[in-house]
Amino acid sequence: MKIDILTLFPRMFEGPLTESIIGKAIEKKLLNVKIRNFRDYSENKHRNVDDYPYGGGAGMLLTAQPIFSGLDAIETENPETIKRVILLDPAGVPFTQSLAEELSEESHLVFICGHYEGYDERIRTLVTDEISLGDFVLTGGELGAMVLIDAAVRLLPEVLGNDESAKTDSHSTGLLEHPQYTRPAEFRGMKVPDVLISGNHKKIAEWQEKESLRRTYLRRPDMLTETIFTKDQKKWLDDIKKETNLL
Amino acid sequence: MKIDILTLFPRMFEGPLTESIIGKAIEKKLLNVKIRNFRDYSENKHRNVDDYPYGGGAGMLLTAQPIFSGLDAIETENPETIKRVILLDPAGVPFTQSLAEELSEESHLVFICGHYEGYDERIRTLVTDEISLGDFVLTGGELGAMVLIDAAVRLLPEVLGNDESAKTDSHSTGLLEHPQYTRPAEFRGMKVPDVLISGNHKKIAEWQEKESLRRTYLRRPDMLTETIFTKDQKKWLDDIKKETNLL
Repeated sequence: MKIDILTLFPRMFEGPLTESIIGKAIEKKLLNVKIRNFRDYSENKHRNVDDYPYGGGAGMLLTAQPIFSGLDAIETENPETIKRVILLDPAGVPFTQSLAEELSEESHLVFICGHYEGYDERIRTLVTDEISLGDFVLTGGELGAMVLIDAAVRLLPEVLGNDESAKTDSHSTGLLEHPQYTRPAEFRGMKVPDVLISGNHKKIAEWQEKESLRRTYLRRPDMLTETIFTKDQKKWLDDIKKETNLL
Repeated sequence: MKIDILTLFPRMFEGPLTESIIGKAIEKKLLNVKIRNFRDYSENKHRNVDDYPYGGGAGMLLTAQPIFSGLDAIETENPETIKRVILLDPAGVPFTQSLAEELSEESHLVFICGHYEGYDERIRTLVTDEISLGDFVLTGGELGAMVLIDAAVRLLPEVLGNDESAKTDSHSTGLLEHPQYTRPAEFRGMKVPDVLISGNHKKIAEWQEKESLRRTYLRRPDMLTETIFTKDQKKWLDDIKKETNLL
């Protein structure tokens, strides 16, 4: 996968792109990331990239020219390979795991990271996707781009050491993950549930599925609205509702 | 504000914490961030921090001891000042702007960043908040912590250059932000709407409010369900609905 990033703060990407999974993917040549400062494309004699908004208002807006020219340069270097140009913006579509899966299947992604008060509206004509991390405001698009890259790149084949790991996570199965325990069996007075050390694989699998359902029901009932339940799941959910009312 | 971070990848924070608004807040001494590698607290002779899950399953879990000891160390250095200990986890409460506002009012935050397949369940007993960035999976909690820090720190007094900027953003007003334009008035054939260069402040304010409503209605109708509309807004919304059906 090839990724181009247009940003005013290239150094923000240094740690996140060299450490952890992303760094390993780059090392293994599964990922190629090129970061450009769009200030370098400014035709303004002071290399300005922002200006006051028409009609007044607080803060400065990013002007169209440097970002248009930056994207021109990326397109010239990559004729016909760019399918997704992504603008990070709080007014975009909220990011989800299915969007991460979609992005992980593209061969070339371009990210435009804004800053300051916002974008000149004409910049939106350049992009295929406007994506928001969620209903909150950040100082710029850089962290959003890193999050999208991390979520997509970990889904690439060969990136995660263990092929199965990506599949059983919360939000990959439509349910939150069940509680998990590792050694020691007792830590500061807290014990691992007996069933998990019973060696009975059928009971363990049932416990895990039921606890996954319980956690989702208690924390994120909104996630269950589109779930199609198995017969077992329906029974467990009834049990969970009864057990919860007893508390 | 004081922030302590427990992570296995301290270098991931390098770029994000030195550049941009967060870096400036640290420079101005409005923010004090201390990053610790919880591997340093491992009592295991190989400094291990993970182990196989009880009951089987893919991937490795973070063990309780290094994170418990790391938090002990932070608490010893900061007796009685820590009110929020935040675990980044996809099974947590989804992060929102109101949670960012809440965090921005705390004097001391601790972030625990996970990695690998998950946490030993007993680690959750340490925390006051389990927060998820959204319904997607990342390789670790580091980017999530950076996002929460960015969203909270930009709300601190004196951090943003312009006091007003934080208030009119998307998700701060309950509506998405209206389209914005800056110079030039025409760029690659695309013109700024006449009203914005009319100099008529009342008309500009009306246009902005209506377009903010339009953008929210078209992109995020879910955000309007709890909005209490003014008389003008009700009329504009009717206009928008009519105009949209005509398209």
